[in-house]
Amino acid sequence: MSSSDIFIGETVGTAILILLGGGVCAAVTLKASKARNAGWLTIAFGWGFAVMTAAYISGPLSGAHLNPAVTLAFAIKDGNWTDVPIYLAGQLLGAMIGAVLVWAAYYGQFQAHLTDKEIVGGPGAQATSAKAVEARDKGAGPVLGVFSTAPEIRHTVQNLATEIIGTFVLILAVLTQGLNDEGNGLGVVGALITAFVVVSIGLSLGGPTGYAINPVRDLGPRIVHALLPLPNKGGSDWSYAWIPVVGPLVGSAIAAGVYNAAFA
Amino acid sequence: MSSSDIFIGETVGTAILILLGGGVCAAVTLKASKARNAGWLTIAFGWGFAVMTAAYISGPLSGAHLNPAVTLAFAIKDGNWTDVPIYLAGQLLGAMIGAVLVWAAYYGQFQAHLTDKEIVGGPGAQATSAKAVEARDKGAGPVLGVFSTAPEIRHTVQNLATEIIGTFVLILAVLTQGLNDEGNGLGVVGALITAFVVVSIGLSLGGPTGYAINPVRDLGPRIVHALLPLPNKGGSDWSYAWIPVVGPLVGSAIAAGVYNAAFA
Amino acid sequence: MSSSDIFIGETVGTAILILLGGGVCAAVTLKASKARNAGWLTIAFGWGFAVMTAAYISGPLSGAHLNPAVTLAFAIKDGNWTDVPIYLAGQLLGAMIGAVLVWAAYYGQFQAHLTDKEIVGGPGAQATSAKAVEARDKGAGPVLGVFSTAPEIRHTVQNLATEIIGTFVLILAVLTQGLNDEGNGLGVVGALITAFVVVSIGLSLGGPTGYAINPVRDLGPRIVHALLPLPNKGGSDWSYAWIPVVGPLVGSAIAAGVYNAAFA
Amino acid sequence: MSSSDIFIGETVGTAILILLGGGVCAAVTLKASKARNAGWLTIAFGWGFAVMTAAYISGPLSGAHLNPAVTLAFAIKDGNWTDVPIYLAGQLLGAMIGAVLVWAAYYGQFQAHLTDKEIVGGPGAQATSAKAVEARDKGAGPVLGVFSTAPEIRHTVQNLATEIIGTFVLILAVLTQGLNDEGNGLGVVGALITAFVVVSIGLSLGGPTGYAINPVRDLGPRIVHALLPLPNKGGSDWSYAWIPVVGPLVGSAIAAGVYNAAFA
Repeated sequence: MSSSDIFIGETVGTAILILLGGGVCAAVTLKASKARNAGWLTIAFGWGFAVMTAAYISGPLSGAHLNPAVTLAFAIKDGNWTDVPIYLAGQLLGAMIGAVLVWAAYYGQFQAHLTDKEIVGGPGAQATSAKAVEARDKGAGPVLGVFSTAPEIRHTVQNLATEIIGTFVLILAVLTQGLNDEGNGLGVVGALITAFVVVSIGLSLGGPTGYAINPVRDLGPRIVHALLPLPNKGGSDWSYAWIPVVGPLVGSAIAAGVYNAAFA
Repeated sequence: MSSSDIFIGETVGTAILILLGGGVCAAVTLKASKARNAGWLTIAFGWGFAVMTAAYISGPLSGAHLNPAVTLAFAIKDGNWTDVPIYLAGQLLGAMIGAVLVWAAYYGQFQAHLTDKEIVGGPGAQATSAKAVEARDKGAGPVLGVFSTAPEIRHTVQNLATEIIGTFVLILAVLTQGLNDEGNGLGVVGALITAFVVVSIGLSLGGPTGYAINPVRDLGPRIVHALLPLPNKGGSDWSYAWIPVVGPLVGSAIAAGVYNAAFA
Repeated sequence: MSSSDIFIGETVGTAILILLGGGVCAAVTLKASKARNAGWLTIAFGWGFAVMTAAYISGPLSGAHLNPAVTLAFAIKDGNWTDVPIYLAGQLLGAMIGAVLVWAAYYGQFQAHLTDKEIVGGPGAQATSAKAVEARDKGAGPVLGVFSTAPEIRHTVQNLATEIIGTFVLILAVLTQGLNDEGNGLGVVGALITAFVVVSIGLSLGGPTGYAINPVRDLGPRIVHALLPLPNKGGSDWSYAWIPVVGPLVGSAIAAGVYNAAFA
Repeated sequence: MSSSDIFIGETVGTAILILLGGGVCAAVTLKASKARNAGWLTIAFGWGFAVMTAAYISGPLSGAHLNPAVTLAFAIKDGNWTDVPIYLAGQLLGAMIGAVLVWAAYYGQFQAHLTDKEIVGGPGAQATSAKAVEARDKGAGPVLGVFSTAPEIRHTVQNLATEIIGTFVLILAVLTQGLNDEGNGLGVVGALITAFVVVSIGLSLGGPTGYAINPVRDLGPRIVHALLPLPNKGGSDWSYAWIPVVGPLVGSAIAAGVYNAAFA
């Protein structure tokens, strides 16, 4: 694979991943969406099929890592770090493009949600009373949730542990599939299996933190959230931002180590 | 593939697509259906498996385009426009046949829904008061929704953008699958993958407009809605009808261009 | 395939089909089931995976028809009626065994449901007042629904049409799969595809009649319902029983004719 | 396969199975989980994909039994009991590790759930009044349910019968798949099919007892529940513990006998 193929594949693939993954969050949480309140099973299938679609499209170009945790694991497994920077650059750029596309596809829903008086207390109300601040945060929370993850209970050790465990499962499944042509990506059946592995992690381990299990899936859209001109959007919760970056990388390194020790 | 195989395959396949796709909308929205209020996940899986079933059946005859956006993308990719008219003719005819079959399969439900006083304000009431008109439109909206798509928020630019983005994802996935025998259709695993791509688009990008992502999927049933003798059916919302035709064709052309530039 | 393999395969396979298919109906409708009120999507996936499991198990023995409509279609397609009686005998026997197994697996739930005063009006109350009869029928309806189908709206022409249309789709998909080893059954990927075709028909065409699309799926359990010593069970609705037998056979014959004319 | 590969494969695989399977129970039942009350379909897909993920990862090492009922069935089928002890040891150890990992991933949720006054009556209240005991048991029941199964209706014969029937279906499907390389495990498509077989059993036969269909899936986590320092956790329901051990083994033996008689 050439460097340009890798860069294009990761950028396009990660953009589609975040478009579809952020999209299902928007679909389920924003006002005036047909899928509002469609539930957690919808979220989990939405992210799983997002991975499948993105992997299927970008596989022939870049092997469909779409996730620094996957890139790290292959680098550790193979002892080859040459292409790591280009993978990461494409992934972060793609994640940001995907988040902008979610905003484009749900533009009216974002506007309707964030200017609804019952949801955010009205355009001029959010700074004037404690009640309005609470109402705004209640409304703005779901909006940040379209972009980035947040824990239900803030507990640094547990939040890290949950992200480490979830990513460990993902990476072990990716490393053991052995179905790709070059030992460095996803085959067609692999895309399907990986989709359901991601659904599985979402259903089973997503409850506490919302399962980033991918540093750029969280960081890229969080940057976009900070930049976009969304009304009443509230903060971007930067104090939590390091956990969905560090946790997945640690989980990936552990999985690669276990793989090299026991499976290789 | 002979012209008659293409025409028969596209007609039968698109009829089954719309029968099953329109069917799940009827199942979830109409009075006296066992699946009423079964939710958005049901809608998305229903349409995804509708595509799979229709593609599986018509694949051997016509390559299972079933969608002018797919036909356009292959024509651009291959630079071959010879069979385009026969594909489009079969698709539009099939979509209309499918919509009539939905009506046949749910005949009693349509009648019960559209003559229910609580839903439409009674057979003679719909012209006599503002309240009755509102009640009728509230009931008739879901009925038109069995046939055609409608946006939650009317915003021409966003509605077009959402259809363009959704179709772009679909077409890029179709073009990159490379699993078909003749480079011009869907293989067996391809039918399964494509089904889940369509579920993905439905879950993630269906919230704003109901994801036509296929010109005949919207236009064919809309024509049938205008022609069928449904009581209290209301208008067919023709002012919106061009968006689910133009949006998917634009999204398809962009995807084919990206494919030829970066993937081919 | 030997006659004894066909008979054993169809008996075991159809028993598992009805055990799992009737089981999901019991799971969703009966009192004291963990899955009570789990909804239509659960029903549709339950029946789809029931077909997959049963087809997967019985495929190597009998080709996994499990449905007289499938047997009829292959007989028409191939012009060979030799094994038809043995297929039908195994299917009807298996369907009855499966229905008895549902009763065994949900014994306590059937007892709890049918002796619950709020559901059936109490053991001694069902003959003494109109209100108690209504309550009993309300409770007994779901119990018959574990065994056999019933329409939401009784309309002979529509009910027949819905069963014909649903079975037509099923049979056309079965005939066109061409994935089986002997041209007369289901391969492994075929079992998966067929599962999702059945989910599709359930989601999209199950709303009006509950989609028998298989004569023995309805008739076998109905006979068992009439024979089992269930308290307060009510009637077995024999006046409707011919529709889910005749409709699927007609739909099958039409599909086989279309297949021979256009696909073969 | 070497003894150490079998032991490692079964330990890692069963740990992942229980992590993901117990995880979805925690996700759906515990306070402060994003997936709370996501319903039975979520539970069934969660366990199905847990089996798929665990089988996919451990298949290359141990053939992915992950269940003493599977190990017993292959031993009966092949008449070879050599590796049975090492399979069972890995499975039980893995199941206990998996249960501990569920606790780690949902630590805050367990604490929040079991110290919530509305759920368990408050930390000091559970011994002082009948009402508080009832409240505690109502809250603690779901917590034990994250680890082990419990019947909705306690009826020894039915509970055993349901576990026997469910495991019979599972084992017959595993034995007939014939897709594995060495006739003693799961291939890739087999992992997918088996996942959906497990979803099927969950949807259709899980209503009465919660479908252990695997002795260590129930026993391992129950031991961990007894050992973990969970506040207000209540008893571990040992009087029921033998049923989800004995039932699956009986069901497995019957399925292996049927397989050898009719399918081999």
